[in-house]
Amino acid sequence: MTSATDPAVGSGALGAALARLAPVDQRAAEAARARQEQLTKPAGSLGRLETLGVQLAAITGRCPPVVPRRPAVAVFAGDHGVVRSGVTPWPQDITAQMVGNFVRGGAAINVLANEIGAAVHVIDVGVAADLSSLDGVLHHNVRHGTDDLSIGPAMTVEDARASLEVGAIIAAELAGRGHDLLVTGEMGIGNTTPAAALVAAFSGYDAHAVTGRGTGIDDAMLGHKTEIVGKAVGRVSDRRDPVAVLAEIGGLEIGALAGYIIGGAAARVVVVIDGLIACAAALLADEIVRAFSGTPLVDWCVAGHRSVEPGAAVALEHLGLEPLLDLGLRLGEGTGACLAIPLVQSAAAILGEMATFADLAPPAEEGTT
Amino acid sequence: MTSATDPAVGSGALGAALARLAPVDQRAAEAARARQEQLTKPAGSLGRLETLGVQLAAITGRCPPVVPRRPAVAVFAGDHGVVRSGVTPWPQDITAQMVGNFVRGGAAINVLANEIGAAVHVIDVGVAADLSSLDGVLHHNVRHGTDDLSIGPAMTVEDARASLEVGAIIAAELAGRGHDLLVTGEMGIGNTTPAAALVAAFSGYDAHAVTGRGTGIDDAMLGHKTEIVGKAVGRVSDRRDPVAVLAEIGGLEIGALAGYIIGGAAARVVVVIDGLIACAAALLADEIVRAFSGTPLVDWCVAGHRSVEPGAAVALEHLGLEPLLDLGLRLGEGTGACLAIPLVQSAAAILGEMATFADLAPPAEEGTT
Repeated sequence: MTSATDPAVGSGALGAALARLAPVDQRAAEAARARQEQLTKPAGSLGRLETLGVQLAAITGRCPPVVPRRPAVAVFAGDHGVVRSGVTPWPQDITAQMVGNFVRGGAAINVLANEIGAAVHVIDVGVAADLSSLDGVLHHNVRHGTDDLSIGPAMTVEDARASLEVGAIIAAELAGRGHDLLVTGEMGIGNTTPAAALVAAFSGYDAHAVTGRGTGIDDAMLGHKTEIVGKAVGRVSDRRDPVAVLAEIGGLEIGALAGYIIGGAAARVVVVIDGLIACAAALLADEIVRAFSGTPLVDWCVAGHRSVEPGAAVALEHLGLEPLLDLGLRLGEGTGACLAIPLVQSAAAILGEMATFADLAPPAEEGTT
Repeated sequence: MTSATDPAVGSGALGAALARLAPVDQRAAEAARARQEQLTKPAGSLGRLETLGVQLAAITGRCPPVVPRRPAVAVFAGDHGVVRSGVTPWPQDITAQMVGNFVRGGAAINVLANEIGAAVHVIDVGVAADLSSLDGVLHHNVRHGTDDLSIGPAMTVEDARASLEVGAIIAAELAGRGHDLLVTGEMGIGNTTPAAALVAAFSGYDAHAVTGRGTGIDDAMLGHKTEIVGKAVGRVSDRRDPVAVLAEIGGLEIGALAGYIIGGAAARVVVVIDGLIACAAALLADEIVRAFSGTPLVDWCVAGHRSVEPGAAVALEHLGLEPLLDLGLRLGEGTGACLAIPLVQSAAAILGEMATFADLAPPAEEGTT
């Protein structure tokens, strides 16, 4: 256990979020469970939508829950030194090019965010290029990419802490502007390698069980990537020091996502988790919160989908999160989380807008019982 | 093979739909497949959303496909004589009460249709009550419920044909008003029994494999229901005469849904299928179309979700439809199909609105190659 002024978390936005993080409202959840039984449908017939509605009541502290109509998407971008070791066929430049694509509105996440009426906020937390003159980007670059995790620590503990802080700042800003649902987005060529390693480090699973083909690699590259993941995990001496684990493995956008998830939960908004990278960040965030206070973080989180990346399923199981969608997605950016937002809104609307059986029955005639 | 003037289909809306039904546009599908490879994402990384986008191009005959922004929901209501044999704990009156609930906007389908900006059209095709004075209902009552399928035919061939016609009329009307996506909805206490029997009759699966607990029944009632399903299927002499099968097993809203699915496809709009009842209707519709012309009907259909009812999964597999959602739903009404509409819209938007890699690359400087 540490305190809000502990140097491991600092006294900034992350420290403030950790100090503020509270459990969800179990009384509202109980009221929502009772209400599900009264609505004009057979008990349990809306399946996962019913348990989601109960969770939303717990998060919003109200039954029926407020329907989250102001979602926001934050896309954190960072680069990875490990790409020099050949874990992806894509050149590192693609990260910066995709940041430009996000700003111009041409990426998948732009299209899907537009469908749910959300703006895309793009944050440079660690791109290996000077983007300081690019308009439309929130400039929080901690460093121009991590070091190669296949040969040593990805970054210093100070850089890791700074990346967490960026995410907590963004979450606090978005929640402060009235956004009631936060989507986790990211971009970083090579980032399935550190994400898989973080999942292995925190779940205890073997590198083979968590390492996947990312954006599409062949068997030889997968074997090489798995070996790198295993070696990096092997260097982790104490997984109960999550910031040190982040520093050892990386990356900057994963740290930022972890800070963002904690910040969102602390601001009492729904946080919708995307694929492998966000799942790794959620594991990291969960470890940080456990080390600090033991408050259940995942009660604030909804898993948008199950990525085809094997590490995502491992992370979701470890966190106890049941994903809403399973569409064979492996793009990241926040796309799978965005696609799940209408389900989140529908689950809340069901509790608030459906009639009850008491409404349905014809009124009793006077003088009868 | 029959012709459009064959008495088995008649010369009304269903006959017109069957005569008009055409294959989807394979050239547009091919163009969409090629476009998916050019968009700024790794090939295949949007999984099921990519194949759905290709299907939408094929249906709309355009690449990129038009995003279906004017969905309509039709809820067909009918009653079932088999409820007298004890296949559900719910009283038959609930069907009529729920029709009132749909009209007042208090049911789950109303809430979920509202979320996608769709109106709910309620059609009385076979409710066992006089609803003729109820405003807001489309009055197409063929008869006041079916006969008990556990002891004999559910209805006459003429009634079965009339129920199909109602659905074809509604689809043509909705498509004629500019709706570009049709959701299949239904209500009928006891209707999982005939739906399971239709799935068994058309798929060849055993009654045990297709019969489920519907809105929630105990083991004893499930055994009784399974026996009834098996007996009804046993009376079907020739499953290649689908209208006769519908008459033997029922029900009126299932016939209407089959006509609606055929009518929607003939009008060249996307038809989104809901749970077990709609899946049984899709099987029936598919058999009718096969008997008439062999044009592939399912190319026009999208399966919204996989119901927990075992017969739904059997029907989907038989039809070759891969559902979009798997949320443990077993309510019907069109709820699972409604929840999938944002995915359908997103799949189309991805093809139309994303940038290509050609857009992404920095423009080549003059004089260089």
